[in-house]
Amino acid sequence: MGKSLWKAGTMIYPLPAVMISCGSRPEDYNIITIAWTGTICTDPPMCYISIRPHRHSYDIIKSSGEFVINLTTKKLARATDWCGIKSGSKYNKFKEMGLSPEKASFVKAPMIAESPVNIECKLTEIIELGVHHMFLAKVLGIHADEQYIDKESQEFQLEKAKLIAYSHGKYYELGKFIGKFGFSVRKKKKHKH
Amino acid sequence: MGKSLWKAGTMIYPLPAVMISCGSRPEDYNIITIAWTGTICTDPPMCYISIRPHRHSYDIIKSSGEFVINLTTKKLARATDWCGIKSGSKYNKFKEMGLSPEKASFVKAPMIAESPVNIECKLTEIIELGVHHMFLAKVLGIHADEQYIDKESQEFQLEKAKLIAYSHGKYYELGKFIGKFGFSVRKKKKHKH
Repeated sequence: MGKSLWKAGTMIYPLPAVMISCGSRPEDYNIITIAWTGTICTDPPMCYISIRPHRHSYDIIKSSGEFVINLTTKKLARATDWCGIKSGSKYNKFKEMGLSPEKASFVKAPMIAESPVNIECKLTEIIELGVHHMFLAKVLGIHADEQYIDKESQEFQLEKAKLIAYSHGKYYELGKFIGKFGFSVRKKKKHKH
Repeated sequence: MGKSLWKAGTMIYPLPAVMISCGSRPEDYNIITIAWTGTICTDPPMCYISIRPHRHSYDIIKSSGEFVINLTTKKLARATDWCGIKSGSKYNKFKEMGLSPEKASFVKAPMIAESPVNIECKLTEIIELGVHHMFLAKVLGIHADEQYIDKESQEFQLEKAKLIAYSHGKYYELGKFIGKFGFSVRKKKKHKH
């Protein structure tokens, strides 16, 4: 069998499905779920989210210049999906999904307390690409749930948070561990007899 | 327990770890593995990859203006890791990893035959953000391995390709299926008695 040629489309997977929280005042707080997101630079740490202009969060983020990226987990899967479909113009998404706004350190936008990792972001530029506009942002700080920090090694064990991935219209848990970055070149320890 | 505040960093996960193939002539063909990648617009379909300027692929992609994004699988995990560490200035990565260059339809850059999905990309802009430069690109076409197209439904069953995810320095298989996009609002079918 060979390969089929398809027309151009969006087929980079698996992706995160993050919940973006925004709004400078409690009455404006909103959440939008986004898979068109990622890291764009390590130093300075920068990321992006792409949003359609008609979305309720678009103007909130554009005018406040701030947002928080909240990683999503198996427990948050239903809220993740729901917040990607419903509009903040009709619902108080925090309330509807039983999520708790938590004060951030650098931005006025709230963090989602139930998320294991919150990434505070400051908008630097908007690029109007087409149906999506890309919001480039600097990362100002990161909040990590201490329950996933190993007490002995002080290592942050993100795998224990049970992050979910989005792939071609479906949500999945992360599965079996394959290897650490660099496993292909690491020398195997010799077994002593 | 609460949350720890960390300094700014890169914590958006899980991400894809794609192999980027590039080069206009066989003697220039190279592969670089990248996790700083994603979709930035649905229509026109656009994506990005962020690369450090010292990488061997940087000049190849900048001068040719073309590259191919190849999705990676459990079978390709070792090659994925290796191509992210070794330099194309020292190795013929296709040869070293036993991968086969395959002719693309729109670009001169080769596709990786062993990848289930190849995404042909045309560079539109480079943004010099910091240690990484962001390459924005239009998707020209997609090649999908026919063995994952269901003969009856004609549905492309990407889950059968066993894509891998990269999360905080570790590679994982995708695990249990959680739900389709929209599952949180879909009405349950009534069970007839």
